[in-house]
Amino acid sequence: MPQLWRKNLINITPYVAGEQPKNDNIIKLNANENPYPPSPEVQRVLSQKSADDLKVYPSMDAAALRKALADRYGLKPENVFCGNGSDDVLAVAFRAFFNSNKPVFYPDITYSFYPVWCRLLKIPYETKPVNERFEIDVTDYYGENGGVVIPNPNAPTSIGVGEQFITDLLEHNRDCIVIIDEAYVDFGRYSCVELVKKYDNLIVTQTFSKSRSLAGMRVGMAFANEELISYMQAVKDSYNSYPLDQIAIETAVASLGDEEYFKATVEKVKATRDEAKEKFRAMGFMVTDSETNFLFCTHPKHKAKDIFEYVRSQGIFIRYFDLPRIDNYLRITIGTPEQMAELYKAVEKVLTARGPRRTG
Amino acid sequence: MPQLWRKNLINITPYVAGEQPKNDNIIKLNANENPYPPSPEVQRVLSQKSADDLKVYPSMDAAALRKALADRYGLKPENVFCGNGSDDVLAVAFRAFFNSNKPVFYPDITYSFYPVWCRLLKIPYETKPVNERFEIDVTDYYGENGGVVIPNPNAPTSIGVGEQFITDLLEHNRDCIVIIDEAYVDFGRYSCVELVKKYDNLIVTQTFSKSRSLAGMRVGMAFANEELISYMQAVKDSYNSYPLDQIAIETAVASLGDEEYFKATVEKVKATRDEAKEKFRAMGFMVTDSETNFLFCTHPKHKAKDIFEYVRSQGIFIRYFDLPRIDNYLRITIGTPEQMAELYKAVEKVLTARGPRRTG
Repeated sequence: MPQLWRKNLINITPYVAGEQPKNDNIIKLNANENPYPPSPEVQRVLSQKSADDLKVYPSMDAAALRKALADRYGLKPENVFCGNGSDDVLAVAFRAFFNSNKPVFYPDITYSFYPVWCRLLKIPYETKPVNERFEIDVTDYYGENGGVVIPNPNAPTSIGVGEQFITDLLEHNRDCIVIIDEAYVDFGRYSCVELVKKYDNLIVTQTFSKSRSLAGMRVGMAFANEELISYMQAVKDSYNSYPLDQIAIETAVASLGDEEYFKATVEKVKATRDEAKEKFRAMGFMVTDSETNFLFCTHPKHKAKDIFEYVRSQGIFIRYFDLPRIDNYLRITIGTPEQMAELYKAVEKVLTARGPRRTG
Repeated sequence: MPQLWRKNLINITPYVAGEQPKNDNIIKLNANENPYPPSPEVQRVLSQKSADDLKVYPSMDAAALRKALADRYGLKPENVFCGNGSDDVLAVAFRAFFNSNKPVFYPDITYSFYPVWCRLLKIPYETKPVNERFEIDVTDYYGENGGVVIPNPNAPTSIGVGEQFITDLLEHNRDCIVIIDEAYVDFGRYSCVELVKKYDNLIVTQTFSKSRSLAGMRVGMAFANEELISYMQAVKDSYNSYPLDQIAIETAVASLGDEEYFKATVEKVKATRDEAKEKFRAMGFMVTDSETNFLFCTHPKHKAKDIFEYVRSQGIFIRYFDLPRIDNYLRITIGTPEQMAELYKAVEKVLTARGPRRTG
């Protein structure tokens, strides 16, 4: 049988996420998850939820969550889009807004899902190299383009930009859609959500997976002017009408309602991060100035891959990318102080035991 | 400001789902939801779930659910794909398999999301008219095409086909991918899941939203040979790595584990359906032979839209489609016997009160 149907199969290279090891005894610092549980309000929702409700479809636009987010950020529900994690939200935005023959611009070192979406959706793109300190040069984004997407803070570099950069970027890009991907912004210094009131071509995306400890529930959101949000709703309604289930909506709303817990958790992660930065620097690592819940670092005398493999053998999972320019770097999620202490021990061991790597 | 960014916005017409009225007092027979709650095992999962788990990402491929479905249907996990409702599953399949320049074939009266996906994904398509009794003629699908999608049973017609039709369809379509959309199959007479072992170009999709009372959790699945499933995984991993959250996976697994409850619920719905068919026929309606959890019917003397509007004014929501060929038909979801009794009363009232519609 010649299997002629094969010729119509799609030809793509998918995104590869961090390992999800199944063993409960490992220390998992490889997926930028939060080491702390979500707000106790989330547990209350689960414990009180009646399974009887589940027989009916959820709200098509996650109405309760749109409203809660609008209230939290001083916007209207019509300025908010909710999706099945910020990956879904970004994919919908790429589909809705990047329909030009000109290339979309984004940094060469950034979230590795961007090129995957561009290839899937047949969007032309052009990467702009970050400098040797992994900083983004805003002037690289002044030229004519089919759209811009910048993560702030950037991943895996962990570096953030401030208001001046974003305003400058927007002032030089009035004729295309600009997406600012704020997945890690709650650990950073500056969010531009407020600017959606001023710039009608700005989309800001965020997620409940990092600062709100709800990676397991897949909730992401976008903020923009009403018209852009209506286009995102139309794309959603052309693909999958109900991307958020009832419990995803309800747990996210509960989490948003507990601002105090949220702030306390974020502060704990930031304190551990700043301590970890010093620890790693004291061990001889070059560490970028993280505005996220992870560190991006390299050691002048030890191969990143060796360190990655050694700590993995000790049951600690961090992230190593075999990619151009960053193949000697590690991305380390901030865990609890106890988890980090285990990591320091393991890293110290590999630095001492193996000695410096041979050069030449 | 000329807003040049507008020229890159996507141009699409989205799918429109049934109304989701918010009032608890209404009788909702418009979205083919199950009137019975999910298995008590689902409630157990919710009550025992620890919110602490939610801080980490779910399984990327819903591994526990793939395994449970494989066990239930006598397949391997590699033969199963899970998605965020069967809409997500179908959209992924359209993307993965319909990449020909030849048109995809499907019936003219069918699930109205098919043309929406074709337009979004730029897939050429050709509809094949069902006959005047709304039956699908298998010979219409013998010609050269870029793929075939047939719902069995079909919606909104509620009519099913048997093994001979499906085998005939597959034997005449060895060079393209054939999707059989079995959203309603548990209420019908014949599922072709078994045939994925024999036909390497067959995809069968199903859902937890109807027979398993989990519409609120958004869980759908596809069955096919390993290679086709691997293409669906690749499309998923190029769009959104984690479409199913932890609780969607766990509630679906719990539901699958309670076969007895499932069978009892399906039998109750079928019994009410068969009774409803007789009731409506006794009131003068033409009702197709439903193999689903809804009825498709028309009255020779009363406009469908009038009946729809009257029962709506009485707080009972059924579905009316203002579409070619079926604009004098109603689609009525099977509710509990008590809900149906209310519906019969309301329909009897409109038939008597208004008298036959004027013709000419």
